[in-house]
Amino acid sequence: MKKAKDYTCITGASAGIGAEVAKQFAKLGHNLILVARRQERLEKLKQEILTNNPDLDIVIKVTDLSDTDNVVELYESLEKYHIITLINNAGFGNYDKVEDQDLEKTVMLIHLNIEVLTILSTLYVRDYKDCKGAQLINLSSRGGYMLVQNAVTYCASKFYVSAFTEGLALELKANHNQLKAKVLAPAATKTEFGQVATDSKAYDYDEHFTKYHTSKEMAQFLMELYHSDKVVGLVDVTNFEFHLSEPLFDH
Amino acid sequence: MKKAKDYTCITGASAGIGAEVAKQFAKLGHNLILVARRQERLEKLKQEILTNNPDLDIVIKVTDLSDTDNVVELYESLEKYHIITLINNAGFGNYDKVEDQDLEKTVMLIHLNIEVLTILSTLYVRDYKDCKGAQLINLSSRGGYMLVQNAVTYCASKFYVSAFTEGLALELKANHNQLKAKVLAPAATKTEFGQVATDSKAYDYDEHFTKYHTSKEMAQFLMELYHSDKVVGLVDVTNFEFHLSEPLFDH
Repeated sequence: MKKAKDYTCITGASAGIGAEVAKQFAKLGHNLILVARRQERLEKLKQEILTNNPDLDIVIKVTDLSDTDNVVELYESLEKYHIITLINNAGFGNYDKVEDQDLEKTVMLIHLNIEVLTILSTLYVRDYKDCKGAQLINLSSRGGYMLVQNAVTYCASKFYVSAFTEGLALELKANHNQLKAKVLAPAATKTEFGQVATDSKAYDYDEHFTKYHTSKEMAQFLMELYHSDKVVGLVDVTNFEFHLSEPLFDH
Repeated sequence: MKKAKDYTCITGASAGIGAEVAKQFAKLGHNLILVARRQERLEKLKQEILTNNPDLDIVIKVTDLSDTDNVVELYESLEKYHIITLINNAGFGNYDKVEDQDLEKTVMLIHLNIEVLTILSTLYVRDYKDCKGAQLINLSSRGGYMLVQNAVTYCASKFYVSAFTEGLALELKANHNQLKAKVLAPAATKTEFGQVATDSKAYDYDEHFTKYHTSKEMAQFLMELYHSDKVVGLVDVTNFEFHLSEPLFDH
């Protein structure tokens, strides 16, 4: 279903799961639109991908999605591309008790994890709802299906993402639209997530988790979800196995 | 546990469930802080409550919570009061397919239902976490536990409220704090909700629902939750009965 001029757009593409997902879609032969704040990282990733896939068109969009105006502007700047896949991967976490959470960081978390994802999803659904092969994949978390201690607001933001995406998937199906909406729910994945969530550069995954996935493993799980006809791809926290399923919330 | 100078603060108090909840707490002898945009409605409610409860102090706060700056300012302006109960009731719904939802209304929904509730909850938890008898009651919805057609973003916002409040309740309990966090999940309730959600003054509950509760009934359910030691008060959509329970999400 992919055409030569099809693009996969990934937000938060400069590192972690986003960067690995970019490499996976390059392997499939998709042109890429990579969105993030850090230009240098995006340029480096672009060169790395082009080394192995010299025929691809890789577009870099340096933007700070923390400003709502930039979100709509970004989307409008992409009108000339045929975006066959949109991956809403930008987001961050916070490990603090509610009483200790910084208000500014909390508002930014709600903005990035919820508002930006909702705006981009809504605009994408409007334009691509009847496009065969189009997929919207939103990054949630295992914490978007299960409350985790010391991460109340983060989990709540990911419950939003899970519910929004499952609800959208059901709506698109009920209306016989072509676009598929899917949600990925990773458990602990070794990225910059831990550092940002704790405001500490020294965050050590081996110290905090007996088991975690690498970004590359998680990107491979995302591709399993992409190739499947299921709505949810979720890591089981008891054995770290990856499971595909229909929507999990009551409806 | 209530003292003469204890106040119950209710956001979105000018109409619907908020106004009826104000009357219920007045019956218990609580002084009130009523927050809403519409001054005339608040003044009318204040006079109505004072007729039956002339000894209460009823404070009116006219503010538009759609501006984040106003939210923190509002909370700071209440520092002189001892707020034994905070009811985050302000919020609204939207009935539209995702592809049809107005972006500005959607951003406002996220802002009011999620961000304002989170800011006020966080500030309240900081100040009252060790206050015996203090309660934070957040208004979710049956749609905050079950995906409902044609209300994807609204439901997702209420999944956030349910998850945030359940997670906070578990956190406060684990840390042996005195403050109780609780979540109310109404099903259809005849208020201005339907008009706002459909942008239509002619919205008729009898036309859309075979059964619904009145605001007064829902306020009475909220008081059941208030007087209980449970975390969740939820209306069963099959029989419209009200049930109290411990947190419902996995944790």
